Amino acid sequence: MTVPDTLGGIGEVATLARIFPRLPRADAALLGPGDDAAVVAAPDGRFVVTTDMMIHGPDFRLAWSSPLQIGWKAAATNLSDVAAMGATPSALLVAIAAPADSPVGLLEGIADGFREACAALAPGCGVVGGDLSVSATLTLAVTAFGDLDGRAPVVRSGARVGDIVAVSGTLGLAAAGLRLLFSGGVDAAGEPERAAATSARLASEHDAAAIDAQLAPSPPISDGVAASLAGATSMIDLSDGLALDARRIAGASGVGIDFHGAALGDDPLTVLGGGEDHSLLATFRTGTVLPGAFRPIGAVVAGEGILLDGQSLEGTGWDPYRGWDGNVG
Amino acid sequence: MTVPDTLGGIGEVATLARIFPRLPRADAALLGPGDDAAVVAAPDGRFVVTTDMMIHGPDFRLAWSSPLQIGWKAAATNLSDVAAMGATPSALLVAIAAPADSPVGLLEGIADGFREACAALAPGCGVVGGDLSVSATLTLAVTAFGDLDGRAPVVRSGARVGDIVAVSGTLGLAAAGLRLLFSGGVDAAGEPERAAATSARLASEHDAAAIDAQLAPSPPISDGVAASLAGATSMIDLSDGLALDARRIAGASGVGIDFHGAALGDDPLTVLGGGEDHSLLATFRTGTVLPGAFRPIGAVVAGEGILLDGQSLEGTGWDPYRGWDGNVG
Repeated sequence: MTVPDTLGGIGEVATLARIFPRLPRADAALLGPGDDAAVVAAPDGRFVVTTDMMIHGPDFRLAWSSPLQIGWKAAATNLSDVAAMGATPSALLVAIAAPADSPVGLLEGIADGFREACAALAPGCGVVGGDLSVSATLTLAVTAFGDLDGRAPVVRSGARVGDIVAVSGTLGLAAAGLRLLFSGGVDAAGEPERAAATSARLASEHDAAAIDAQLAPSPPISDGVAASLAGATSMIDLSDGLALDARRIAGASGVGIDFHGAALGDDPLTVLGGGEDHSLLATFRTGTVLPGAFRPIGAVVAGEGILLDGQSLEGTGWDPYRGWDGNVG
Repeated sequence: MTVPDTLGGIGEVATLARIFPRLPRADAALLGPGDDAAVVAAPDGRFVVTTDMMIHGPDFRLAWSSPLQIGWKAAATNLSDVAAMGATPSALLVAIAAPADSPVGLLEGIADGFREACAALAPGCGVVGGDLSVSATLTLAVTAFGDLDGRAPVVRSGARVGDIVAVSGTLGLAAAGLRLLFSGGVDAAGEPERAAATSARLASEHDAAAIDAQLAPSPPISDGVAASLAGATSMIDLSDGLALDARRIAGASGVGIDFHGAALGDDPLTVLGGGEDHSLLATFRTGTVLPGAFRPIGAVVAGEGILLDGQSLEGTGWDPYRGWDGNVG
């Protein structure tokens, strides 16, 4: 029986030597990993930047996610924040802290996930640098950059009364996947278990799609630039659920957002509550031909907060966190 | 007795509301915290970027470092990587993962450390965004940006035979501080203890300076640009000790580096081994008037590796990690 190499066993330098060749190269990298810092092209004279941590326990479980899925999700969730500004993702920084007894294969798999996610979601984007540390808690801190190509960033505060409210990407699917994992992907004691999660995924095509959306989401990254080019007046990445994130646009813009129940399917309240789709929610002037995969789901109205078919959801006792627990998800 | 507010008790939104006003503003921030991503000016059309994690245990101890010192050190160590490229630090991103029972005062103190470090070391640099998460292990992931103002980055590979080797900042002082903490800053069981560390600091002015250099280093940030303007041929931030980091320049440049023992004080081998000074090591063409606080400590020679007064330190059994354990430091 061969014992796999561990991070602590072969050390940082040897581990990095095995990871580097797997990482995607960035077209924008003028000086890549290996010096004190990287140098990245910012042809626009500005750059868009966002950072997000993913922590084992609250954000992912090794029993449920493959290393590749961990890397993929860390890339995808940061890329979607860049897209939500109307920018083209250009580069990523990846800082990873892992227990010393982690197999090097875990880190190689995570690197593969970054490479595959960039190839699928944001071709030309790659990893320009990072950091590797030892920690008791597996932690990824990813920073993503984007270029605006001369356009204004699409912020949250530009929605105006009369605008179309539109979404590109799934709604509530990732949250459904998380519920399936917590109900079917656990052992008798309720602890996450790989075999149970694999079985849960095989129950139906919908269940497989939902679990995949949770573990390795594919947000519509290129629709961020498409929305900007189509004149989007506001945009946000749907990380905490349609209701909460729409309320952020409503609050920043000083308007209300009225969702059309018919556009939200059979169970609109569940769709409104589910987080982690990383879809793009945007507003457009009336008459705009919606770009890419955007579809209309509501309208910007006078007032405040969010509504469903004209009825305010504020103060109704309806809880946007229903079915969604960010602390365990 | 009042119970202090905790991160888990008041939640992310209320915690951020208390942190934001304490953070330094960046002159380069075109769109600061509060949207999906920030927008930062890159007047040069490129940006320098580096990231480093600091993890409780291997990188700092709450028993030894005040919250302000934790934030200060996280800022300083990243700023010095930007400086080592010859760039002016423009902005920081700060991602923090902390246990849910952390007092909010811990995070406020860390924010104060970022503000004071930027004011002291890199005026105009500030925090443009970040992330706050819950983790069992207190973890900071900091990303720092810099602007080159049209100059080429100063990389590790440009040292040429005959160049002056010079340093700006302390040598071995931070490692001496760490040794003092491990010898005198512990309780009877050898565990880090605040009262013991405070006593150790009072032993002498030197000991106080050494412990301060370890817990809240003040690297010569502005000397990075000064070195670039003076034509530095290579430069590196001294994070792992003079010997190891000089060997990186030697290896990247295909040269040897010969240190003058007289320039390294009474105990040159200890000075060569000590890490975490975050001073700047650079090479300059002969005849250069050394800028800022740079002082000559050696010469670039034909060959490879590092030497002391002409004697190679390679293969002598001398261990550059002597007196320095990155895993416990």
